Amino acid sequence: MTTSELSDTSPHQLAAITAAAAAAAGPLADTSADERAALLHAAADAIDGRADDLVAVAHAETALGEARLRGEVARTTGQLRLFADVVREGSYLEAMIDTPDPAASPPRPDLRRMLRPLGPVAVFAASNFPFAFSVAGGDTASALAAGCPVVVKAHPGHPRLSRAVADLVAEALAGAGAPDGTFALVSGLETGAALVQDPHIRAVGFTGSLAGGRALFDLAAARPDPIPFYGELGSVNPVVVTAAAAAARGAEIARGLVGSFTLGVGQFCTKPGVVLVPADAGMDEHVRDALDAVGDVGGEMLLPRIAEGFRAGVAELAARPDVTVVAGSVHQPEGTAATAVVLASDVAALQRAPDVLLAEVFGPVCLLVGYRDHDELDAAVALLPGSLAMALHAQPEEAAGLAPLLARLQERAGRVVWNGWPTGVAVTWSQHHGGPWPATTAPLHTSVGATAIRRFLRPVVYQDLPADLLPAALRDDNPLGLLRRVNGRLTRDPVGGAGAVGR
Amino acid sequence: MTTSELSDTSPHQLAAITAAAAAAAGPLADTSADERAALLHAAADAIDGRADDLVAVAHAETALGEARLRGEVARTTGQLRLFADVVREGSYLEAMIDTPDPAASPPRPDLRRMLRPLGPVAVFAASNFPFAFSVAGGDTASALAAGCPVVVKAHPGHPRLSRAVADLVAEALAGAGAPDGTFALVSGLETGAALVQDPHIRAVGFTGSLAGGRALFDLAAARPDPIPFYGELGSVNPVVVTAAAAAARGAEIARGLVGSFTLGVGQFCTKPGVVLVPADAGMDEHVRDALDAVGDVGGEMLLPRIAEGFRAGVAELAARPDVTVVAGSVHQPEGTAATAVVLASDVAALQRAPDVLLAEVFGPVCLLVGYRDHDELDAAVALLPGSLAMALHAQPEEAAGLAPLLARLQERAGRVVWNGWPTGVAVTWSQHHGGPWPATTAPLHTSVGATAIRRFLRPVVYQDLPADLLPAALRDDNPLGLLRRVNGRLTRDPVGGAGAVGR
Repeated sequence: MTTSELSDTSPHQLAAITAAAAAAAGPLADTSADERAALLHAAADAIDGRADDLVAVAHAETALGEARLRGEVARTTGQLRLFADVVREGSYLEAMIDTPDPAASPPRPDLRRMLRPLGPVAVFAASNFPFAFSVAGGDTASALAAGCPVVVKAHPGHPRLSRAVADLVAEALAGAGAPDGTFALVSGLETGAALVQDPHIRAVGFTGSLAGGRALFDLAAARPDPIPFYGELGSVNPVVVTAAAAAARGAEIARGLVGSFTLGVGQFCTKPGVVLVPADAGMDEHVRDALDAVGDVGGEMLLPRIAEGFRAGVAELAARPDVTVVAGSVHQPEGTAATAVVLASDVAALQRAPDVLLAEVFGPVCLLVGYRDHDELDAAVALLPGSLAMALHAQPEEAAGLAPLLARLQERAGRVVWNGWPTGVAVTWSQHHGGPWPATTAPLHTSVGATAIRRFLRPVVYQDLPADLLPAALRDDNPLGLLRRVNGRLTRDPVGGAGAVGR
Repeated sequence: MTTSELSDTSPHQLAAITAAAAAAAGPLADTSADERAALLHAAADAIDGRADDLVAVAHAETALGEARLRGEVARTTGQLRLFADVVREGSYLEAMIDTPDPAASPPRPDLRRMLRPLGPVAVFAASNFPFAFSVAGGDTASALAAGCPVVVKAHPGHPRLSRAVADLVAEALAGAGAPDGTFALVSGLETGAALVQDPHIRAVGFTGSLAGGRALFDLAAARPDPIPFYGELGSVNPVVVTAAAAAARGAEIARGLVGSFTLGVGQFCTKPGVVLVPADAGMDEHVRDALDAVGDVGGEMLLPRIAEGFRAGVAELAARPDVTVVAGSVHQPEGTAATAVVLASDVAALQRAPDVLLAEVFGPVCLLVGYRDHDELDAAVALLPGSLAMALHAQPEEAAGLAPLLARLQERAGRVVWNGWPTGVAVTWSQHHGGPWPATTAPLHTSVGATAIRRFLRPVVYQDLPADLLPAALRDDNPLGLLRRVNGRLTRDPVGGAGAVGR
């Protein structure tokens, strides 16, 4: 296994790589569903086959621990295989056919629509998921599934792992018949900026910080030909605890919170960063007890720079007169080590400085914000920034009365969790990992779940095309057996056949 | 009918209008499919009921003629009713359910996903479709259908019509029970810029010029919270004529071309602006004959400013030594009048100045570009900018050999037309009106056809939500009778029921 360090990709190398990706785009787009599924399976199998070695390299570079990393490898290869299923299932193509109507005024032609791959996609790997949101992660899997060549910008936090995974994937794809240029890895900060501006690149998938993501988003938008930038940037994932829930099971909720915000040393995009709790329900004490009970919660963060950001974020909050320390210590170790901290404040403070108190601080810290009544809770909810997920802890018997609160949370979140925690993102057909800005840059964006593939596709309509030039998905006889919308009705029947599914 | 002139909306008025739209967003999002369909039908009925008056006002302001304008009214109200069907059909919600799996590692929660409205949408009306891409046009229809309040920026080319349609629509929506603030009209260049930057606005639909659209796109992207800007900006809609087609029916193709590029005084977004023809097939002569045969083809353009742009565009092309005049005259009348012109050039000229020769010139002009062989055709195709539509005129017997050319055209176009013309956009489920930049700003964008609704929606996932808090679309018993994806399978059955539609 290659485990050499990554050197920065030169502009000359980058130009060759993106030109090769552009050359691969047509042949890759023309592969059949089975061929593309085989590519995804080959990549998954290659990674699974070397999981022991990869996990060792990953642990050495990220300190995330073997158990977590093994789970992440399984998630990564599971994602690749899920997208193989999505491709074979075929409805992601959104095949639609409207047959001609010469009697219409004006006469209606034959119109057949499907989604086609966009072309080469740039993927920016994340620091905190060295497998699942990195070289062969969800962005790569969904872009390849769509039929788009991928150029991954490696994250500097795990260069040897990035190289190793990239080599495995490239070899596996080539072995499974992928066109040359289908997949490449590049490295370097300036390379990343150049990649977003490269004329061959047609879309970008990004997971990372708000500052870095915004800078790249701006580059993508400022191109002579702007391209979609699908960025997942930052999220505080607020949690609301009702008075009834705090009274009935405050200690249990506190234990759940401690488990969630300290998971992976607080380095999840879905970490609950702020919790709205009833002011006089003793939640501060419950959380202190819960943290004490698990002892010295902390660990090694991914990178010295990330630990530094954590310390600075905690210090900025704790230095405020309207913020107190509930549990853990503001005084953090040096280097990459971090220990869990819980801070507390109130709604008035939130209103004074929402940008400070509701900024994401990556790492094991969370802020309890006490609300005294419904009005204060409403005022606090109105300030919550767009987030990947929000959670509501409440008692079953008060559910019906919580519809208005739930409606306000869903306005600001991509996922709404009932009596659970935002962390833990199952990879399924219906899963969504996106939310209003700054959680993600595009409202329809998701980087997890089957619909992530749609980011890398665009519609094409064929008007009056001869039968033998039509893509298989749009032929009268429906050779792929797709569920298609024919004259507005969903059906698997051949065009002209009977038995539409009906509207 | 109110037919007063529009005065510019003040910043104070705009703030009140967008605040009202924001207040309407929740109640409008909560309306049922039937309620929303009723709103759309009420608007359509109101417009149809006053069609005579509206057409008269529109003709006075646009000179588009009664026949065309009556057809456009029908298209506009047809669009409103199509989106009522789309809402009632319900699959636009993309309802998906993954039931829990406690045995999974980690245990999988109950996940239920659907699309929800984005919030207030700004719509910029176009000059050239005073009904169908204007106050109550496709953007407005699809945004209202999605459940989003709409603030329309009127086009200055038809202010009295804009006011009249807006008053009718506002009254009809209110009468059908729409929340206050659901719909408003604003006016003024600076108002438009302020509208795109208004914090309450969550998305923009725009049809207009490349320069104006780019300026507004840049404002949307530069917001502290960037919002999607769905702009349709400019398109040359290239046409390719094969040597076999030119030989077999050059005169017929020429007649079709003249009909298409002069339709509506050349003021369609889908006007064929450049035609790649075999160099020595006499297509120049065929087109000259076809134009001569129909006589003095021209008419009044929409606005003096637009006619000025047409004259300037024609003059810039005709002044080039590598461009000749084939038919019609470069010397155009003053004011809003315009007459048809055909210019000719060659592939070498295209390669020297693609930005000039392939720029959209709004109005009745088209450029024939002669290619001498396959290599020249390939070189010309490689230069074609993204377009709403491209057309290929060929003989049936050569179809099979044209797959590679077709593939290259589809890379650059949203719609590919066989032996037809880009003009004439049927409004159907499968229709698409978008294309790679600069045709539209977002690859998945379409402003025509059922999927236009998706621009104004975003996914929300509910995790472990109690049954009585779930939206109807996601309840176990499927009260709306939707086709839903349950554990990856499409079905109309209740959750837990049998008989899924397939895999």
